[in-house]
Amino acid sequence: MADIDTACINTIRCLAPDVVQKANAGHPGAPMGCAPMAHILFSRFIRGSPAHPKWINRDRFVLSNGHACALQYILLHLTGYNISLDDLKSFRQLHSKTPGHPETNHGVDGIEVTTGPLGQGVSSAVGLAMAEAHLAATFNRPGFELINNYTYCILGDGCLQEGVQAEAVALAGHLQLGKLICLYDDNHITIDGDTALGFTEDVCKRFEAYGWHTQVITDGDHDIEGIARAIEIAQAVADKPSLIKIRTTIGYGSKNQGEEKVHGSPLGEADILNVKAKFGFPTDKKFYIPDEVYGFYKNFSLRGQQLYAQWTETFATYGQTHPELHAELSRRLAGELPAGWKDALPKYTSASATLATRKTSEAVFNAIAERIPEIIGGSADLTGSNNCWWKTAKDFQPPATGLGTYAGRYIRFGVREHGMAAICNGLHAYGGLIPFGATFFNFIGYALGAVRLSSLSKHQVLYVMTHDSIGLGEDGPTHQPIETLAELRALPNTLVIRPADGHETNGAYIAALENRTGPTVLVLTRQNLPHFDTSSAEGVLKGAYVLQDVASPQVILVATGSEVSLAVNTAKELANSGVHARVVSFPSWELFEAQSQEYKDSVFPEGIPVLSIEALSTFGWDRYAHASVGVNSFGISAPASQIYKTFGLVPDVIAEKAKRLISYYSDRKPEWKLRKPF
Amino acid sequence: MADIDTACINTIRCLAPDVVQKANAGHPGAPMGCAPMAHILFSRFIRGSPAHPKWINRDRFVLSNGHACALQYILLHLTGYNISLDDLKSFRQLHSKTPGHPETNHGVDGIEVTTGPLGQGVSSAVGLAMAEAHLAATFNRPGFELINNYTYCILGDGCLQEGVQAEAVALAGHLQLGKLICLYDDNHITIDGDTALGFTEDVCKRFEAYGWHTQVITDGDHDIEGIARAIEIAQAVADKPSLIKIRTTIGYGSKNQGEEKVHGSPLGEADILNVKAKFGFPTDKKFYIPDEVYGFYKNFSLRGQQLYAQWTETFATYGQTHPELHAELSRRLAGELPAGWKDALPKYTSASATLATRKTSEAVFNAIAERIPEIIGGSADLTGSNNCWWKTAKDFQPPATGLGTYAGRYIRFGVREHGMAAICNGLHAYGGLIPFGATFFNFIGYALGAVRLSSLSKHQVLYVMTHDSIGLGEDGPTHQPIETLAELRALPNTLVIRPADGHETNGAYIAALENRTGPTVLVLTRQNLPHFDTSSAEGVLKGAYVLQDVASPQVILVATGSEVSLAVNTAKELANSGVHARVVSFPSWELFEAQSQEYKDSVFPEGIPVLSIEALSTFGWDRYAHASVGVNSFGISAPASQIYKTFGLVPDVIAEKAKRLISYYSDRKPEWKLRKPF
Repeated sequence: MADIDTACINTIRCLAPDVVQKANAGHPGAPMGCAPMAHILFSRFIRGSPAHPKWINRDRFVLSNGHACALQYILLHLTGYNISLDDLKSFRQLHSKTPGHPETNHGVDGIEVTTGPLGQGVSSAVGLAMAEAHLAATFNRPGFELINNYTYCILGDGCLQEGVQAEAVALAGHLQLGKLICLYDDNHITIDGDTALGFTEDVCKRFEAYGWHTQVITDGDHDIEGIARAIEIAQAVADKPSLIKIRTTIGYGSKNQGEEKVHGSPLGEADILNVKAKFGFPTDKKFYIPDEVYGFYKNFSLRGQQLYAQWTETFATYGQTHPELHAELSRRLAGELPAGWKDALPKYTSASATLATRKTSEAVFNAIAERIPEIIGGSADLTGSNNCWWKTAKDFQPPATGLGTYAGRYIRFGVREHGMAAICNGLHAYGGLIPFGATFFNFIGYALGAVRLSSLSKHQVLYVMTHDSIGLGEDGPTHQPIETLAELRALPNTLVIRPADGHETNGAYIAALENRTGPTVLVLTRQNLPHFDTSSAEGVLKGAYVLQDVASPQVILVATGSEVSLAVNTAKELANSGVHARVVSFPSWELFEAQSQEYKDSVFPEGIPVLSIEALSTFGWDRYAHASVGVNSFGISAPASQIYKTFGLVPDVIAEKAKRLISYYSDRKPEWKLRKPF
Repeated sequence: MADIDTACINTIRCLAPDVVQKANAGHPGAPMGCAPMAHILFSRFIRGSPAHPKWINRDRFVLSNGHACALQYILLHLTGYNISLDDLKSFRQLHSKTPGHPETNHGVDGIEVTTGPLGQGVSSAVGLAMAEAHLAATFNRPGFELINNYTYCILGDGCLQEGVQAEAVALAGHLQLGKLICLYDDNHITIDGDTALGFTEDVCKRFEAYGWHTQVITDGDHDIEGIARAIEIAQAVADKPSLIKIRTTIGYGSKNQGEEKVHGSPLGEADILNVKAKFGFPTDKKFYIPDEVYGFYKNFSLRGQQLYAQWTETFATYGQTHPELHAELSRRLAGELPAGWKDALPKYTSASATLATRKTSEAVFNAIAERIPEIIGGSADLTGSNNCWWKTAKDFQPPATGLGTYAGRYIRFGVREHGMAAICNGLHAYGGLIPFGATFFNFIGYALGAVRLSSLSKHQVLYVMTHDSIGLGEDGPTHQPIETLAELRALPNTLVIRPADGHETNGAYIAALENRTGPTVLVLTRQNLPHFDTSSAEGVLKGAYVLQDVASPQVILVATGSEVSLAVNTAKELANSGVHARVVSFPSWELFEAQSQEYKDSVFPEGIPVLSIEALSTFGWDRYAHASVGVNSFGISAPASQIYKTFGLVPDVIAEKAKRLISYYSDRKPEWKLRKPF
């Protein structure tokens, strides 16, 4: 065996093909090519304690080229995290801890964010680094560097081509995130072949244009000391994020090294023998890890344990000198909301001035933002339209800009919706923060790649989405969401809430802040809406509730958001012709589904036909409604009231349809939608 | 009045606030700031004929900052396109020709692509320039420069922050698109305020990193000769796209010029008076256009008419010397598919080897790609997985790379899903081409911003989406679409087809190629599927059809794609216990909805309960089915068959559910889903 670094690197290079081969699926090439940089990171730089994997001041490591996860699983195993050799052997198998791409909150410590969908990892790494900068500025005091960690990220050519990456790293440059260090696995290979096919930009120059510090390592297969030095230099550059471009050979050691063939398929047994022979490893052993390698990596947990112990001591002392800050950080790390935060929520009556729900949302921000200081976020350059700025908000900005500090909690995301969502995932993944991102509802369509990962990875992110229908008016069909509500309702583990007025907006935020294991999408109007005396936050928490009732209702009008008042007016119109209509406000399908059958039955009793009213696509409403009015084409540019009228979303037209619905079921009972055979 | 250029520019600067004020909504600032560059483009550079607005060799102009569309409408009016002064007066009003953001295929000539959602315009402009390069390489011959136009694009800070833009312009640099010229309205203002808040990158340096040529104009408010010279220089750079960064003052002339206040709201009457006085225009007149300005812009149509006449003559001569090429271009411009293209579609029987539909899709490409030479496209770096490369395909590449030529029709999009879709919109908008883009189905979620514009703008784009469910197996939940089918089914004017086997894949492509007024999403498996003797392309064109029947069916099993064979096996299982099940293959909801009521009733007759089977979210299936089996959580990383089993997607479990469904309706008729009260 050669020196211990080489032994470790070669162990990874021999182990990764075994892991992939046993699974008969996966990506051996990048783990083999990235073995040197990953080994150097874990053995010399990353500070973490496998015994205390959630230690807040650990360094964060993100493998943005998540398909290379055999590498990450191997390193987590070697450094003592909760991945066993058996877990490596069950790579990509049913219910294993080692799925095809790294999933955070999946039972494996050391996976900070979910990666695999390209560009997401590095973008969330920007969020992790922003969280560190913010919490450091918030909690550190002279002599107490409680929050002081690096965020390391390995990324490949794929990530560098993705738009979400461009958005996030551009912002990272502006924000001068000096503790974000990215190692670019420059292997010249994408799935289609050589990067010459379509990725010929000067990556370092681009990053410099964003304000990054860049370095180049020309032989990343061997120059481990060069890599180590570059990381040290990057650490020393405090006012710029760093990119280290490291030229590597994909599948280093394979007979097909340097070719796309080694990217996404097992090497095959013959080539694996060749690899092991080349590195002087026993060819008759699979999953072989020399004792000296295990022994060397033990230093990782020993160092981490020591750092953790020191930190714990420091934190205790901090508790004596800064008891309030200590209590505050402790509360946040425990994941508890501050007591009494709901007390300040605004109150309304039907006599209150009409308000858009983007404005009642603003009222919530003003009421709670200072009471819940872990709230951090901003808008994709629509602050004045999304109304998510609160009166005492301060900008999250590098102090050098003179525009704010890292202690600020209002983030200027820029016109970067996808980057914003991916950054929010990173902010939440860090811990101690509840991030939010805002834009027009229609443009959540730009961000779905990252929103989906909020849902999959159980990140509590608040998506504050305003201008939620044709009701936005003149901006027209390019900006009017139609399919968007259905899209999000179809997404698993995603709480979608479309409140109807002030009280319901309060309820929406209560639900969102108490939903700790997934994102909440708040769907808010541009246009003013009346308040109801019978609306309530409690009603929102049940998903749907009877807002207005009559004896022996003949029809149930169910609506969400801005169409609840339309339903109320339709009920009035129906009452004028002697028809009894119940009005149900239905702000959240997911919350309703979580209620008892008894409660659900009380809202939608057997035998009464249901008509849904929503100024978006009716897609999906068949689940609850016997007929629907909505908008099943693209919208129109015009004043909002004229658009509503054009689509028949006015009381008299809907009342007519309600009568047709009642008459349709005059000779039989409508199917009870709440009953299913299974 | 000053010189004519200044008169024209000031006319625009006075007219734009009038247009916005009358609408009481819109964006006056950018039109006023961009007036000089836009005037110079239209008066000195853009070649187009309002009398022949679809002339194939016209220059393309894209206003990527689409919110500034008052500018574009004004210039189209002044240059003689079909926008009247009354149309300008009905800006943003119901059913006007001048909606809040420019919409192509909306009755207004000169709007090449839809813009407004930021980043889309410039990205589609890349597609327009690629189309020009391709058609020039395909049809030009010595002495016949039939295709030889520029693509001009004005874009702002917003577009430059969007990821879709980064993806598209990076590819444009690689592709050396010398005839793409972008004018960057560098006004230092975004909606939130000064760009210092979050957009501080060195834009020119970034574009140079991509391989663009860049220039800077420091006084874009006045230096019209400088702008003109820069455009000339840009034209002379043949092997690089050009960015001209032009420093302007947003709202130039307003008392709030240079501030975000003038961005998105009417200036107000007082300020409008101030603007008009400042530019020496009559303050008592609204929508005032001096005769000399009208007179000057007449040159646009005169020049265009002359160029068009010359071109027509050249094209006629070309018809004599190159009759086949002439016929081919004429056919394409007429929007007709070549005769007999379907003849070569492959045939299958149930004895054929099982094939993934991504492979039967590949067979279609091999059969038709040379017969329909307007097909052009590629994959977002998943060529070998999406199987959209055909045997005789050649790369679309700059000749200097040695990797292909502009006559090639296979595009290496790189890992740029959103850019790919926006580019496809531009390729289609140019004319004479049918573009396709391919990736994993899950990652259409990255591209939805542009896919939505394919639908809104009626672009015939084929989205070839493979790996369409949990059936992709080991890559796991990060890659397994769940909500994705529902998402696209909810999107208006979008044809979604999920074929079950080889014949149905043929049908899917027939439908896609004949659907000339919108995109088609082809949803294809990774895993192998059997072929059916009773499946057919004709069945696909009807959306749904009876694949397998029995006398007196007790239940209808309806499935799509890979679950059709599961339905067939479930029917077999049911038959073993004496239960009669019809099997309906339902590849496309949209095509089914277009059928006669009689046909629809024949597929789903009254009185028979329907069970849907699809290995994705069941969201939306209540429209047709009385019960559904599917996947309503995120997926799992494991071999595909084990995942199917875990989710109960196996014949015995489904058969059991079918029996429960039948028993549930044993005492009454199920609601007939095809009947609605309205």
